[in-house]
Amino acid sequence: MSVSSSLKTDSDLHDLQFFADGRMRHLLSLRSFSAQQLTDILDRADNFIDAAGNATGRSNKLAGVTVANLFFEASTRTRISFELAARRVGAEVVNLDLQTSSRNKGETVMDTVHTLQAMDVGIFVVRDSETGTQTTIARNVNAGVSVLNAGESIVSHPTQGLLDLLTIRRHKGTFDQLTVAIVGDVAHSRVARSAAEGLSTLGVRELRLVSPPSLVPQHEFVPSAKIMTDVDQGIAGADVVMALRIQKERFENEDGIPDETAYFREYGITSDRLKNAAPGAIVMHPGPLNRGVEISSTVADGPSSVITDQVANGVAIRMAILEAVVS
Amino acid sequence: MSVSSSLKTDSDLHDLQFFADGRMRHLLSLRSFSAQQLTDILDRADNFIDAAGNATGRSNKLAGVTVANLFFEASTRTRISFELAARRVGAEVVNLDLQTSSRNKGETVMDTVHTLQAMDVGIFVVRDSETGTQTTIARNVNAGVSVLNAGESIVSHPTQGLLDLLTIRRHKGTFDQLTVAIVGDVAHSRVARSAAEGLSTLGVRELRLVSPPSLVPQHEFVPSAKIMTDVDQGIAGADVVMALRIQKERFENEDGIPDETAYFREYGITSDRLKNAAPGAIVMHPGPLNRGVEISSTVADGPSSVITDQVANGVAIRMAILEAVVS
Amino acid sequence: MSVSSSLKTDSDLHDLQFFADGRMRHLLSLRSFSAQQLTDILDRADNFIDAAGNATGRSNKLAGVTVANLFFEASTRTRISFELAARRVGAEVVNLDLQTSSRNKGETVMDTVHTLQAMDVGIFVVRDSETGTQTTIARNVNAGVSVLNAGESIVSHPTQGLLDLLTIRRHKGTFDQLTVAIVGDVAHSRVARSAAEGLSTLGVRELRLVSPPSLVPQHEFVPSAKIMTDVDQGIAGADVVMALRIQKERFENEDGIPDETAYFREYGITSDRLKNAAPGAIVMHPGPLNRGVEISSTVADGPSSVITDQVANGVAIRMAILEAVVS
Repeated sequence: MSVSSSLKTDSDLHDLQFFADGRMRHLLSLRSFSAQQLTDILDRADNFIDAAGNATGRSNKLAGVTVANLFFEASTRTRISFELAARRVGAEVVNLDLQTSSRNKGETVMDTVHTLQAMDVGIFVVRDSETGTQTTIARNVNAGVSVLNAGESIVSHPTQGLLDLLTIRRHKGTFDQLTVAIVGDVAHSRVARSAAEGLSTLGVRELRLVSPPSLVPQHEFVPSAKIMTDVDQGIAGADVVMALRIQKERFENEDGIPDETAYFREYGITSDRLKNAAPGAIVMHPGPLNRGVEISSTVADGPSSVITDQVANGVAIRMAILEAVVS
Repeated sequence: MSVSSSLKTDSDLHDLQFFADGRMRHLLSLRSFSAQQLTDILDRADNFIDAAGNATGRSNKLAGVTVANLFFEASTRTRISFELAARRVGAEVVNLDLQTSSRNKGETVMDTVHTLQAMDVGIFVVRDSETGTQTTIARNVNAGVSVLNAGESIVSHPTQGLLDLLTIRRHKGTFDQLTVAIVGDVAHSRVARSAAEGLSTLGVRELRLVSPPSLVPQHEFVPSAKIMTDVDQGIAGADVVMALRIQKERFENEDGIPDETAYFREYGITSDRLKNAAPGAIVMHPGPLNRGVEISSTVADGPSSVITDQVANGVAIRMAILEAVVS
Repeated sequence: MSVSSSLKTDSDLHDLQFFADGRMRHLLSLRSFSAQQLTDILDRADNFIDAAGNATGRSNKLAGVTVANLFFEASTRTRISFELAARRVGAEVVNLDLQTSSRNKGETVMDTVHTLQAMDVGIFVVRDSETGTQTTIARNVNAGVSVLNAGESIVSHPTQGLLDLLTIRRHKGTFDQLTVAIVGDVAHSRVARSAAEGLSTLGVRELRLVSPPSLVPQHEFVPSAKIMTDVDQGIAGADVVMALRIQKERFENEDGIPDETAYFREYGITSDRLKNAAPGAIVMHPGPLNRGVEISSTVADGPSSVITDQVANGVAIRMAILEAVVS
């Protein structure tokens, strides 16, 4: 599996994601976003969150627009977040579970896209465990049609990255004084990668990527990040601790992680470990949780946890992105 | 499998289902409802039924509210009834088939609920073949969030009970002079139990629970009910005959029912048997029908049958409940 | 499998499809349509297509109406086309995948229909690989309830036929000077049959049904059509070339088609073959495409192809039909 995008440079990517006048066309990766572009999206999303932190915003800006969720890789949680976001800005939504439908009949991905486009689908939300599908679709759709990346292999998950940025900003205000520790299977995490790209652009004081030695990313996706393998050192003084979900298939294979118990003992985020974080540190997790593996229940349900805020902010971010691409 | 709820007393249950000012918060069981509370719901539902008996009512009272159907136990019919009811009072609906989605990833039920709640889901419609899931969720959701029971083990199916009450009232006017016979697998029927609880509270003259000896309920869920095992005696003089659906798995096992043919011969509701009912008796069935097992096609499709009325009334009851919990 | 409808005469069919005053009630087959009735639908559909040929029309004529998609035979593409069409004229839609739901519980088709009808479903969109289901439902629903055929065995696919007519009319203006060649597995194609019925009624100059000898239709569904087995002769001078999708199960069996490569060599629509068509000929295909089997990618993606127009017109035709049956 290739982990590099089919786009060679950030400039190519920028030109695909943004029109010449600066408006967003597609959302494929946070890699080419400027700090101002990130901030604009966060500001827009903030409008959909109420004083209590709930995603109660509604608009009708996408009335008449049809959004198709093309999920080549299943995810109830992300699909529902996008579905609710789309409906809450007034769009119609159709869900395609593409593992079981058109691929059965041998149709190509682009034939499916062209068909939906002819049905006046204006926005494609695409999730795939392979790399490059979103970019291929974005390069080939009609003018006026947008593609939003809802998870791409281990490469990119930009709406997750944005919701992480929003959650940090809502709790910490600014980024420049923050130490952020991303802990877990960094090597295989599109969540880590998109968050790291965004945090690097917004300029945190220190970004730490903390993982077992076997799960250190081979590709230096954010050169300024500090690569660490000791979780206690990684958490020490951190203002933000982001635990990553670890896939079961990492255990008992060449990655050198014997089992869940050993992982929790060596890398799990626990109350004890959190004592070394900065005062008022927040703990994040993209969900779904493996309780007792990458995080203890005490921490997940405790006062430092902002995990449900992340979910609420995710809806707001997706509403903001949907509005941005039709502006 | 435990058949008792996790709530010890009717008073506990009442406090969970109703606010102090009498407004409904959750719908878990009809057990704690007063006659006035039942009547209020029936009156509210009546408004959604037109003169011809059709469920043509529409409202916009749940505009901006999101309803999540959490079906741990599959049911197309009940899911669609709730889905249409919710949309017809203006709500957004998301369906989660929880047999195949989040449980695959090992997430707990409450993690799923907390996630949806963070996405601003305001009402959870929950169906489960196990006991207590609805109560657990109701105890743990945020203020302002409601849980509606769409079928719980063999314990409770309150919207079915309410639609049965509404159907009887629309056909018979009042309850106090009625003899009602519930016939079939009473021991394993949440439908029988919820209907019996409601009918008991509203005060029918005689409530008969008629079943094969092996399917007499062990738990006396309505002490005033008459337990009978002879179907002809059970039907004699009854104003309402409610046939229960029997599950295939009851046959050829310890329940002593050899097969469908024998069951139909001994307990099936037929035209011949109905001759002993009161003049103008109505016949009910919760559906889906096993024709020629618990009921003959002649009866199911005949003039005494009010089975399609039950379906129409079911949509109206669910609309009424949805409106009640946001009032 | 019977290939004849349960309706003996066109007059019976007409009386089932149309009220005495000429308004449409059900859409089961194009067989009984007059040229004026076809033209009325095409005119109505044209209103939903914009100047650029896109299906951007919206209306609110079915506000308050519920449409149920009853798909006994799966089809993501047709289901989504009907679903979007229904929502874009203001209806509510529920999708029932009937392979996995109510048939599991042994409910009859008519019990399912009666249940949904009691839930105030006003329009049933029905697809089935068997013959006669749509007609049976149409004969048994309440007054005011309509049935739309979304694909019936190898007999009928009237909305596909109508979208083909609309596509031809939008590209060619009138029908009477046209030579139309339908090429492929004519014997098993409901698409061919509905298109041929419509084209015959509208009076094309010449209608050619071109297929391998083993796939010549046994039933003369359009007596005026010219049966041909040489594809080059079939295409010669044609203004419209409609390729049919061939099912994989036709290969390596008694139908005498050894494999896909042989089929493509002998019957595939290629650029070379198209040179013999009339100048400005258009190429159609109902989708999904088997590229390199019934059509080459060069043709499918080339300037003669109107395949995506067919998809857009399909949404418009379904919107038109939905409006017609509630008028």
